[in-house]
Amino acid sequence: MVTPIDPTSAAFLLAENRSQPMHVGGLQLFQPPEGAGRDYVRQMFEQMRDVEAVAPLFLKHPKRSLRTAGQLVWEDDDQFDIEHHVRHSALPRPGRIRELLELCGRLHSTRLAWERPLWEAHVIEGLRDGRVAMYTKTHHALVDGISAMRLIQSVLSTDPDKRGMPAPWGMRASAARSRERSPAVTERDLAEVSVHALQTALGIAAEAAGLPGALIRTLNRSVRNETSALSLYAPRTMFNRSITGSRRFAAQDWPIERLRAIGKASGATLNDVVLAMCSGAVRTYLTELDALPDAPLVAMVPVGLHARQSHVASADGGNAVGAVMCKLGTDLADPAERLAAVHRSMKDGKEALSSMTPVQIMAMSALGQAPAILPPLLRMQGIVKPPYNLIISNVPGPRTTHYWNGARLLGQYPLSIPINGMALNITCTSYDGNMGFGLTGCRRTVPHLQRLLGHLDTEVAALEKAVGA
Amino acid sequence: MVTPIDPTSAAFLLAENRSQPMHVGGLQLFQPPEGAGRDYVRQMFEQMRDVEAVAPLFLKHPKRSLRTAGQLVWEDDDQFDIEHHVRHSALPRPGRIRELLELCGRLHSTRLAWERPLWEAHVIEGLRDGRVAMYTKTHHALVDGISAMRLIQSVLSTDPDKRGMPAPWGMRASAARSRERSPAVTERDLAEVSVHALQTALGIAAEAAGLPGALIRTLNRSVRNETSALSLYAPRTMFNRSITGSRRFAAQDWPIERLRAIGKASGATLNDVVLAMCSGAVRTYLTELDALPDAPLVAMVPVGLHARQSHVASADGGNAVGAVMCKLGTDLADPAERLAAVHRSMKDGKEALSSMTPVQIMAMSALGQAPAILPPLLRMQGIVKPPYNLIISNVPGPRTTHYWNGARLLGQYPLSIPINGMALNITCTSYDGNMGFGLTGCRRTVPHLQRLLGHLDTEVAALEKAVGA
Repeated sequence: MVTPIDPTSAAFLLAENRSQPMHVGGLQLFQPPEGAGRDYVRQMFEQMRDVEAVAPLFLKHPKRSLRTAGQLVWEDDDQFDIEHHVRHSALPRPGRIRELLELCGRLHSTRLAWERPLWEAHVIEGLRDGRVAMYTKTHHALVDGISAMRLIQSVLSTDPDKRGMPAPWGMRASAARSRERSPAVTERDLAEVSVHALQTALGIAAEAAGLPGALIRTLNRSVRNETSALSLYAPRTMFNRSITGSRRFAAQDWPIERLRAIGKASGATLNDVVLAMCSGAVRTYLTELDALPDAPLVAMVPVGLHARQSHVASADGGNAVGAVMCKLGTDLADPAERLAAVHRSMKDGKEALSSMTPVQIMAMSALGQAPAILPPLLRMQGIVKPPYNLIISNVPGPRTTHYWNGARLLGQYPLSIPINGMALNITCTSYDGNMGFGLTGCRRTVPHLQRLLGHLDTEVAALEKAVGA
Repeated sequence: MVTPIDPTSAAFLLAENRSQPMHVGGLQLFQPPEGAGRDYVRQMFEQMRDVEAVAPLFLKHPKRSLRTAGQLVWEDDDQFDIEHHVRHSALPRPGRIRELLELCGRLHSTRLAWERPLWEAHVIEGLRDGRVAMYTKTHHALVDGISAMRLIQSVLSTDPDKRGMPAPWGMRASAARSRERSPAVTERDLAEVSVHALQTALGIAAEAAGLPGALIRTLNRSVRNETSALSLYAPRTMFNRSITGSRRFAAQDWPIERLRAIGKASGATLNDVVLAMCSGAVRTYLTELDALPDAPLVAMVPVGLHARQSHVASADGGNAVGAVMCKLGTDLADPAERLAAVHRSMKDGKEALSSMTPVQIMAMSALGQAPAILPPLLRMQGIVKPPYNLIISNVPGPRTTHYWNGARLLGQYPLSIPINGMALNITCTSYDGNMGFGLTGCRRTVPHLQRLLGHLDTEVAALEKAVGA
């Protein structure tokens, strides 16, 4: 069966090259149930592998069809082999989190081959404390990072005694709801906005690595309007260089209660506190490397759109995001002042965003989804400074403890997509009282990435002290 | 630096697709030296990784160059990252040979991406008996299976106390000798034979998945000549079907002394005994699946060429092979009769081979190296039966115990290339008194591949009994 690929998915496929694989990842840590034997991880792997039927999303692969003049299409893989996609892996000794992050970085560095369905899952044993890890990898042409996490959450349960639960790629009753964006869905969701031309343009844009038409005009307007969501005041930093295809990954979580207390004491949101943590950590990291610019760094922060703004987003919620350019206040020495600067910048950005037209929001959203095609566009416009310095996302997750066939989910950490000119990506997600940070960077462009974890930890304490939380 | 790719290497690159990755592999088992600590495998991995300089062969990757009208060229990888190529892996519990073979099969199933140099090495811990494994994978466009094994042997030593030994991919004094075929070398070696046309034809051939010109004429002659090395009497078997890209690998070794005693008692060569073992094992395997054809199976057996025949081979010996089509006698119930049939067929085949002209030998050699391009050629000629049923190679290795920085090499096992229509490949290599068998098969087309190991073992005993060894 051959089906057309929608323009956004095609853009992700075409923007991919050796230096910027376009897949998102997720790391999950599980605690085996009481009484689990030595063979538990193998059993878990076998349950993941031995699904009765695989959902269509996980069976299709992209192909250039000769019949449609070289256009990309989805085609079902007639040689589908689940053992290629679901794998049982192990960590070398001593089996610390360090070895796990190293393996995840390595797995995340390899492109998914177009000749097979664009996903992989690794059930990983060998953590010395007995926890079990799962790393999953899905091409952005199939799902965005948010949808990927939701897909995995959708097979979990709050009931520790429930068994017989399916793998995320197994076919199930709810599949119709969490299914991939089909062309029909995309067309319906875009129908309210007269942006068919834009949609077509996006397809062409990706081919040419630029975005013409309505989007250019939107961008030009943004360039000339300081109050808009698009900042062009980002300094040059070491993150804004060409990258290689190798990745390093670091992850850790902090109690949301601590972050909330900081927000409460300072009048900031939880998201502001997350951004201020990143700001302080990046400031320390760059200072240590003698590479902190005078001007504050700018983060692109995807934000969820409210009902009034979201008529351009798809029904399943996966794409209902805009982006705010947040000045991080990295020029300020005082943690409380940095937090105040972040809070102000986010407030301004969200107000600017809410006054945008649907077409502008759609354009912003497209930029947020396909940052890879922004830098070439800016070069086309004669703009050589980076539009922002890094991407920081914060995706809310479930608040309660979840289980998969009795195994307790302890934490989850997203792996994102660094791109040329944006070598560092920080994505956070909340779960069961903790905020999990996932830092994905180019191995060469962002040295000693793991130091940022220590700096984040220091920054939480510094913020607590500064605001009296 | 951009250099042209010689036609044979280009053929291997172009013959590659999702179902038939064109890389060879090797599995080595080591015994850590006395007093090795828990961290030994990590140290070994770090020694393998932290080479001072990497040899040119391991730095180049293939690229279609626009400047040369889409022709393939080698280009140095300017983003070379040794950590992508040299990896530290571990086995899941219980860490038996079974888990090791499973991992090797999985690693061997993935294509090497053209965007990086075409090799990988995995230092593997987690075998429960404390042995350390190394799996290496190299594209056939860089080296053939024989050269790949020699490359690894070239860094080993017979001195258990020697230290400071380089990794196989490290630059070293002897690099000039064991270096990749450069275009200059190829041209010099082919100079004696007036086959420049053939060389060009081979390049075109690979593009069109057929072999025109001189090669077709050679083949046509062979088709009409029963005494030639090319057999067209192979029956259809389950091995001669389309394959998928997934592999399964099985390996084991037997004392050469036992095989030699069988040869001595029956007047057969060691290679004849190896072929008879395979014959008996395959016969039992097919009988169990109720799939044994009436006519005997035919194996393509690459053979080394003697001085008189080898003026077409390259200087480093990697390509100095022809091929004999050996009737395996799988129709005969008695092991001794099968061995006699194999011995007769090999003797006839080698005589036919030795009377071939240099161009014919070159053609045979090209077929042996690039079996992937033979079946389409035969279809082009209206021949639909398989030219042979499986490939069985036997490559002599070192006779004495070798070490790498004190780690004793216990055994080595080749992983080969199944192709469409040839789903099973058996490659053997001798080392330190043992004959190591490596069986590589398509996971789907050759079910229960590992059963062949038991059948091989049974066959050794049956041969011993039958010939009174």
